[in-house]
Amino acid sequence: MEVKYKIIAKKIEENIIEGKYDNTKKLPTVEELMEIYKVSRSTIRQAINTLVDKGEVYQVQGSGIFIRETKKDGFINIQYMRGLSGDFIKNKIKTKVLELKVIKSDREISEKMKCNEGTDLYFIKRLRYLDNDAYTVEYSYYNKEIIPYLNTEIVEESIYSYISESLKLNIGFADKIIYCEPLTLEHSKLLGLKEGDGSLVIEDTVFLTNGLVFDTSKVIYNYKFAKLLSLSNYK
Amino acid sequence: MEVKYKIIAKKIEENIIEGKYDNTKKLPTVEELMEIYKVSRSTIRQAINTLVDKGEVYQVQGSGIFIRETKKDGFINIQYMRGLSGDFIKNKIKTKVLELKVIKSDREISEKMKCNEGTDLYFIKRLRYLDNDAYTVEYSYYNKEIIPYLNTEIVEESIYSYISESLKLNIGFADKIIYCEPLTLEHSKLLGLKEGDGSLVIEDTVFLTNGLVFDTSKVIYNYKFAKLLSLSNYK
Repeated sequence: MEVKYKIIAKKIEENIIEGKYDNTKKLPTVEELMEIYKVSRSTIRQAINTLVDKGEVYQVQGSGIFIRETKKDGFINIQYMRGLSGDFIKNKIKTKVLELKVIKSDREISEKMKCNEGTDLYFIKRLRYLDNDAYTVEYSYYNKEIIPYLNTEIVEESIYSYISESLKLNIGFADKIIYCEPLTLEHSKLLGLKEGDGSLVIEDTVFLTNGLVFDTSKVIYNYKFAKLLSLSNYK
Repeated sequence: MEVKYKIIAKKIEENIIEGKYDNTKKLPTVEELMEIYKVSRSTIRQAINTLVDKGEVYQVQGSGIFIRETKKDGFINIQYMRGLSGDFIKNKIKTKVLELKVIKSDREISEKMKCNEGTDLYFIKRLRYLDNDAYTVEYSYYNKEIIPYLNTEIVEESIYSYISESLKLNIGFADKIIYCEPLTLEHSKLLGLKEGDGSLVIEDTVFLTNGLVFDTSKVIYNYKFAKLLSLSNYK
């Protein structure tokens, strides 16, 4: 189903993630890639262009294709959404479920989730620890028409893994709004900080590949630990 | 020089930015686009794939190509770097230059800028107002070997316009680190806030398309006004 250059782009991407080019921070030459993947020059060119657009590599005329630092230890790359468990594979993540219930969608949430008012939604409030530090307070809503069943056990682990691996749904993309906000007394207590301390906040609206919104959330990060990474292109 | 599908992708992008599809939030069909641009189906397909990778559109099987909200009034889209003047075309931006001098690069900055220790750098400290609100305190370093001349007049306006329009250099991409940090007394006074209030901070390392770093900066945003937008893809 997928076109050839997309498949090649993914293979190169996997090699980058696995650290295959960490020594040189460079990809093989176009000629070498043609040889490795047994495809034409134009397929390799298109695959490289895809990786450039995604901010993963950049080309320097006459000296090669260089790899951008898409991963940094301890940083959340906000261009990709892998969930906390995906971002911190080396760390221990512990989740305390503070609330899990079914509610009816109100006007404000319906607008965000592009669903009818009154739609059944899972409402989840979680406190998440990275290693032993309180890292985030999360408020999430999941459309029950798309995610028909959640329980404490699922919600204590990675909801995203459950959605993609058990429900076999294709998570597509997310609109994220990022800002800084003073902590309420309640949140400051949960995060072990002081009321009024700044916090980094990310509001997410998350879509399946078919364009349906299945999740909106507000995540309040402990400012002492949260660092985001974004690889931007000039325009 | 540029391949055909890239040119088509840019044209479609321009139409999106100009609001041509604001009514429907959808692109014309592939067949219509083939007709409009007089190119083959595969060229249109590649152009669309480019826009998908860049997070500008998404496809829904059987119902069309939808436009993502890459612009929101008052939000900074951190995937693109257009400078403050580019992000807020409707607002009045005023810049107060607090410092402008040539310094020698120390070890820390040399590492970030991938230049030798002792390289001449412009150091610039600016306070920027959005309409009448103090919006950012910015600390920037520019490599003088790449940007040979800056003066107060240039630095009071958009440095990026000067670099691309007057120096004809091609700004390529940037690595951005985003976090939240308590304000120092000095910064709180400049921004009209309280010492210890949270601030949204972006550290930038900015590259020309040829891979040379010409600028690193730390920008401290007034948390009351700063909102970032990021369109992410799942991975």
